[in-house]
Amino acid sequence: MSKERLSVIKIGGNIIEDVTSLHTFLKLFSNLEGKKILVHGGGKRATHIATKLGIESKMVNGRRITDADTLEVITMVYGGLVNKNVVAKLQALGADAIGLTGADINSIKSDKRPVKEIDFGFVGDVKKVANKSIEKLLQADFTPVFCAITHDGKGQLLNTNADTITSQVAIGMSEIYETSIYYCFELNGVLEDFNDKNSVVKIINPSVYKELLANGVIADGMIPKLDNCFDALENGVHKVYIGNTSMLTKENDNYTTITL
Amino acid sequence: MSKERLSVIKIGGNIIEDVTSLHTFLKLFSNLEGKKILVHGGGKRATHIATKLGIESKMVNGRRITDADTLEVITMVYGGLVNKNVVAKLQALGADAIGLTGADINSIKSDKRPVKEIDFGFVGDVKKVANKSIEKLLQADFTPVFCAITHDGKGQLLNTNADTITSQVAIGMSEIYETSIYYCFELNGVLEDFNDKNSVVKIINPSVYKELLANGVIADGMIPKLDNCFDALENGVHKVYIGNTSMLTKENDNYTTITL
Repeated sequence: MSKERLSVIKIGGNIIEDVTSLHTFLKLFSNLEGKKILVHGGGKRATHIATKLGIESKMVNGRRITDADTLEVITMVYGGLVNKNVVAKLQALGADAIGLTGADINSIKSDKRPVKEIDFGFVGDVKKVANKSIEKLLQADFTPVFCAITHDGKGQLLNTNADTITSQVAIGMSEIYETSIYYCFELNGVLEDFNDKNSVVKIINPSVYKELLANGVIADGMIPKLDNCFDALENGVHKVYIGNTSMLTKENDNYTTITL
Repeated sequence: MSKERLSVIKIGGNIIEDVTSLHTFLKLFSNLEGKKILVHGGGKRATHIATKLGIESKMVNGRRITDADTLEVITMVYGGLVNKNVVAKLQALGADAIGLTGADINSIKSDKRPVKEIDFGFVGDVKKVANKSIEKLLQADFTPVFCAITHDGKGQLLNTNADTITSQVAIGMSEIYETSIYYCFELNGVLEDFNDKNSVVKIINPSVYKELLANGVIADGMIPKLDNCFDALENGVHKVYIGNTSMLTKENDNYTTITL
């Protein structure tokens, strides 16, 4: 018997922060057929509120450190302000949303990142996704909305990368569903030429990926993102799509599909 | 067939704000047998963070007004900071908690309070509790943890009194469960003599209530609280208890029981 389909959709800070983009996306999301899960980042709102509260953003080697004060702000902004407003808006659009951190229903357990050269502070690396508990919510016809927070199971919340949450939740749910990931961002997809927004690489499989890495089309921050996609595919996820939010409609076929 | 039991427990700001009191309470709560729901207020944390963010607490005739900025702080503090930390701590204690506002699973819909002499701003009066949706969570063995936020179903979150949320959720769940309310606060119960903390009025029924009102034992802020209790009882709630958190143990029998 073929598995039922599940879509796991991630939106980044640029969509979250723009009222119009967010509304357009949430409409598309709520109209999407079948079971679905939303994962959202928090964007610059957290930095903005941290600054107002007099909490400095600490960076080491260009990477943000989550100290106790910063974790409080993240918990307020991601878990409260952003998550609950998204849930309220989805309810208005007819989607029976439920906002979650990884602590809720013990859905995503993580390990505090060990201190090596850098102490990242209260940052978690995902260890276990409780797919059977998440499945109970989906079976009840609720639509889970995850923010980028997990917990260690001992009472500590942990800041966790939203892309990783997306792929790990999708991997976990693949046991039960034919699960696809949609990474929505401001571009149309992975671009062959960064200056031509229509030069979308339509399909990336492992051999295309090698080529794109060799000729430098995929570089820097895109490498961990793509590695993350292939990791998901190698661990049971059906397909990964990268593009702007209109890829959720049938009209747009200009986006990147990542496949094995 | 007799109904299964459900306990709806409310804790106020004094418990939330004190690390030791909160931990003691959460241990008692997680050990409590049977199905249960927690409702928490937010306490002074919201005021404190609002002040830091330069948001003035606006009062009219001694009552707080929830303007747009204040609602943002409440959503951050109640829905994020307090709620998610309580959930993480309960998970560590073995209770499979899930944090909720009234927007999540459309659990508590309210009407924005109409403007009469005072415009209270974004304050909601509870209209409908989705008892069947909450029941799905209880059936899945999750423990709902509500903060004092509801929504209007049109995308707007609303600040809502935690005592009212408690009684309205309990009334809604009474259709399905034999539901009791436990209002936990810093006193041992309703006191005959405010200066003697052991002068607990053990049982308040409607005729005792009339007496206590007539001789001034119950006055001021306690009147709406007690009215709220009787409203719950008249609408299907089995029993209402008022006392400190140790009333959740079998050792303490020094608390107030409110009954018809």
